[in-house]
Amino acid sequence: MSDEIRQIGIFLFPDVEELDAVGPWEVLSYWTRNFPDDGYAVSTFSPDGEMVSCAKGLRITPDWSFASMPRLEVLLYPGGQGTRPHLKNPEQLAWVQAQRTTVPLMTSVCTGSLVFAAAGLLANRPATTHWASLDLLQSLDPTIDVRREDERFVDDGDVITSAGVSAGIDMALHLVDRLAGTERARQVRRGIQYDPQPPI
Amino acid sequence: MSDEIRQIGIFLFPDVEELDAVGPWEVLSYWTRNFPDDGYAVSTFSPDGEMVSCAKGLRITPDWSFASMPRLEVLLYPGGQGTRPHLKNPEQLAWVQAQRTTVPLMTSVCTGSLVFAAAGLLANRPATTHWASLDLLQSLDPTIDVRREDERFVDDGDVITSAGVSAGIDMALHLVDRLAGTERARQVRRGIQYDPQPPI
Repeated sequence: MSDEIRQIGIFLFPDVEELDAVGPWEVLSYWTRNFPDDGYAVSTFSPDGEMVSCAKGLRITPDWSFASMPRLEVLLYPGGQGTRPHLKNPEQLAWVQAQRTTVPLMTSVCTGSLVFAAAGLLANRPATTHWASLDLLQSLDPTIDVRREDERFVDDGDVITSAGVSAGIDMALHLVDRLAGTERARQVRRGIQYDPQPPI
Repeated sequence: MSDEIRQIGIFLFPDVEELDAVGPWEVLSYWTRNFPDDGYAVSTFSPDGEMVSCAKGLRITPDWSFASMPRLEVLLYPGGQGTRPHLKNPEQLAWVQAQRTTVPLMTSVCTGSLVFAAAGLLANRPATTHWASLDLLQSLDPTIDVRREDERFVDDGDVITSAGVSAGIDMALHLVDRLAGTERARQVRRGIQYDPQPPI
């Protein structure tokens, strides 16, 4: 194993859904900051590296641009209304395809998987998305084995897709489990006191 | 009931824990943006209105400063390492006390309640915080009825305190329930697909 720090990159873009990105950010940054010896780091990037206005209006300034970002071990593509223009943007889809050729593990939250589908990454694979976009996911690529049931995420080896918004937290904990082991994932879960009890 | 929009303000400060703020932001902004007729809006503010570097390095630019922010109906004080300097900052504690005199509902996530305690807001009241700070909360004010068990939040009328980090999501859904009804809170929960299943 190389001593090089392995990089996890969270993609930020205009109208990205806030919790799609920041839920996993919390899980992954809690992990990497508290356990640097595990050899991972997490950062954010946007196409031009400039501040992004998210879907609900939160403004986040990323660490990197497409041009300056490090080579990634794991890419996380959040969802949100901002994914819709990506579906018909050849340049963005080509960027996703190029990432696929170099990034070992491609992950998505919510409607991020729609972009993976449009880029052809999910052909003949199981995948999921936000419940309201399951039909759209299927229509983008009829060969996808769309998981419509109550799966928070679908791990298909070199690609992981998640259900809507808050499911990214569960998927990110799974990532920690997969990359650093179950005990580490439990420590992170305990750290962010993730013992959810929806009150309604 | 006045036609005026009632304002919910989320406080951002250096080293605020990301999910403490953005979990509730997602819940509350999903609600207020999709159901504007309910009469609420949510925004963020920092002391000087400038970009804040959060505890894990995310950089968020708030909507307002202390000077420019609207009068609040609900204030949300997140936690994070950034709360520790507040405990010994007379100016910040005086600001919290001043907010208490004008803001009908003061809420906190994680170690935000430590600042409420240091400002005297929790005397002779039930309250909670992140599990690792329960003793500190008690030491800041021995009259607090510290809830050490598995309570995600403690609603004591005009003040609500939450457990650690991710508990802010549960508390925010409770806020929607309290301010706009259970059916609305369920719609928000469904929208952000909050059916958590921690994988470990």
